[in-house]
Amino acid sequence: MECVFCQIAAGESPATLHYQDDELIVITNKLQWVPVMLLAIPKRHMTQGDLWQDSLLSRMGEVLIDLGSKLAPGGFRLLSNFGRDAMQSQEHGHVHLIGGMHLGPYA
Amino acid sequence: MECVFCQIAAGESPATLHYQDDELIVITNKLQWVPVMLLAIPKRHMTQGDLWQDSLLSRMGEVLIDLGSKLAPGGFRLLSNFGRDAMQSQEHGHVHLIGGMHLGPYA
Repeated sequence: MECVFCQIAAGESPATLHYQDDELIVITNKLQWVPVMLLAIPKRHMTQGDLWQDSLLSRMGEVLIDLGSKLAPGGFRLLSNFGRDAMQSQEHGHVHLIGGMHLGPYA
Repeated sequence: MECVFCQIAAGESPATLHYQDDELIVITNKLQWVPVMLLAIPKRHMTQGDLWQDSLLSRMGEVLIDLGSKLAPGGFRLLSNFGRDAMQSQEHGHVHLIGGMHLGPYA
């Protein structure tokens, strides 16, 4: 199993957990570009495209909005990267939550 | 009715339409920060938080992935802004698609 998000979801690779249930986890992103950087990841391996067409996405939204409101009360951005131009680094689908400071324009 | 996205959805304000069905539209964003900037908008007025917890979100994902693959084959980013720190400018929920060039880091 070479997918690092699968390893984290299986508890075989360390991560700081903010939420988990049967289908998804939310962890701290190791990158520290802004004060709050979380990653919502489905436990089951699926692509970014699979995730964004699955009903799991709005459940993920529910969890992320709850966390974002608490950890980044001034505002936050939810995003997913698709492909090279967007610097997608993991095939396993995921949604980023970033916040904790003024984020500037989104492009 | 003061919400510009409601006006666009009702056909009362002009926009370049890329997709529409009973529940959602995809239009060109008037901003031209990067070559491809689309906006997916529910026809019904709902907040960003409502949209991200609604099953409509993954239907929106399906439409945006199809458009992104065609218009920004090198990759694209899907995102929503929540609140002041993220520079959210419209209360009416919406998902941005940006692409058409190397987008750089997402924060």
